[in-house]
Amino acid sequence: MGGSLAFALRSLCKSIVGVDTNEDVLLYAMSEGIIDQKYDRIENALDAVDLVILATPVREIINTINWLSENIQQSILLMDLGSTKVEILSAMNKLPEHYEAIGGHPICGKEKSTIQYADPGLYRNANFILVKSSRTTSRMRIVAEEIVDVLGSIPVWMTANLHDRYIAATSNFPYLLSNLLSNSLPKLAGDVVGPGFLGMTRLSASSIEMMMDIVITNRVNILERISEFSDQLTEVKGLLENKNYVDLESILRNGKLNYLEVVEKSHKVN
Amino acid sequence: MGGSLAFALRSLCKSIVGVDTNEDVLLYAMSEGIIDQKYDRIENALDAVDLVILATPVREIINTINWLSENIQQSILLMDLGSTKVEILSAMNKLPEHYEAIGGHPICGKEKSTIQYADPGLYRNANFILVKSSRTTSRMRIVAEEIVDVLGSIPVWMTANLHDRYIAATSNFPYLLSNLLSNSLPKLAGDVVGPGFLGMTRLSASSIEMMMDIVITNRVNILERISEFSDQLTEVKGLLENKNYVDLESILRNGKLNYLEVVEKSHKVN
Repeated sequence: MGGSLAFALRSLCKSIVGVDTNEDVLLYAMSEGIIDQKYDRIENALDAVDLVILATPVREIINTINWLSENIQQSILLMDLGSTKVEILSAMNKLPEHYEAIGGHPICGKEKSTIQYADPGLYRNANFILVKSSRTTSRMRIVAEEIVDVLGSIPVWMTANLHDRYIAATSNFPYLLSNLLSNSLPKLAGDVVGPGFLGMTRLSASSIEMMMDIVITNRVNILERISEFSDQLTEVKGLLENKNYVDLESILRNGKLNYLEVVEKSHKVN
Repeated sequence: MGGSLAFALRSLCKSIVGVDTNEDVLLYAMSEGIIDQKYDRIENALDAVDLVILATPVREIINTINWLSENIQQSILLMDLGSTKVEILSAMNKLPEHYEAIGGHPICGKEKSTIQYADPGLYRNANFILVKSSRTTSRMRIVAEEIVDVLGSIPVWMTANLHDRYIAATSNFPYLLSNLLSNSLPKLAGDVVGPGFLGMTRLSASSIEMMMDIVITNRVNILERISEFSDQLTEVKGLLENKNYVDLESILRNGKLNYLEVVEKSHKVN
């Protein structure tokens, strides 16, 4: 996400500074012209930038916010791209007054998340969730909306609580489904694997580190989705056992309608 | 599937005859050059063809086989493309001696299955499951393998029982998951729907008639998959409740590995 963001912003900013603990990532980003300068530690980059955008796994974002909070005295504009928001916002809310900070989550991405897959068009037409912290000044808000605007994304304001509840349903839990489906493939069934199965299990290729942070920081909402989905599975199981095909068909028709509505809405945007 | 098959075979056969109860489908197929002749009833087409390929929803395939069995005295070479095989093969096995018949299931397809989406390249590099019936003569076998060959598909021989057990895991149950996930989308979560959710729910747009036939004719295997998957969900729920992230991570790593292996195998073929 960070690489794609840098790629999209590079011609629109005076300078893009990349920070990563992995030197290879930075060298690749430099060689591809995705970033202009590179640092291995955030504290070394702070003098060179007007805005810091954190784009690591969620728990590393939280650690960085906490570290900055305790160690850095200079004024900083801070934004993040983390996939869950409650815990990140909780850290942001504790930042000292010289920080201006806002939560962000662009609703886009790929299961292939390394720098080699950086795509400057990734953010185009995607909703970009913005979450106000107690450190969100009007200047921070304007800067964030400007970033969203130049990325071609659509700004959507939301509370951290609602974001995390909804994202559990649309992203975190679907990832678990995808991964468990991949897990459940019988050893000898490979000959009858078609495009449907590959599409349904594609998300299981996501970065485990990134996904574990998401699962850990959105545990309660994900547990609720698991319970609700398990109930649905139990209901369908009962209908099948009783050969109640009328009720089963009406569930399937509803699922199809829901999907077609969601696609229509996303086409209106895209 | 039938439209794509006709499209792929049209330059390789002397004549392609389309049979459909829907006149609009036949007119479209004629106007696009996908078929050469059209009939609304199979009995009217029999004199014009050397080989009959049934490509309707599964229960209609079974009905047609039973009807032919009782009503047609002439010699017929018969193949089908149905997505479940046990019940179809059971009907084939009851055909009189003047029939030669074989079961088929190409492992390809799209959720958009109307004639407008007919695609002559659909079958290329796909596994094409072939299932021997008690009416499969060596001539029928040779004809079937030739069809599979000219389509660019890969012939894979399998029993009806194994096919249905495996296809429940790789196709029928994933469809149910996709549909139930679409069903479970909270009303207000649309703003955080991204490409991941759309990919996971895409299969829910499949033809309900086609899928109901599949579910009904592969009920027992699908029920087994539901049970097994529910157990997996319960296990993950327990791990999350107990914050057992070590075991959860090892499950996710295994799911990712499985997926990467499946993709690698499918790339070797495609």
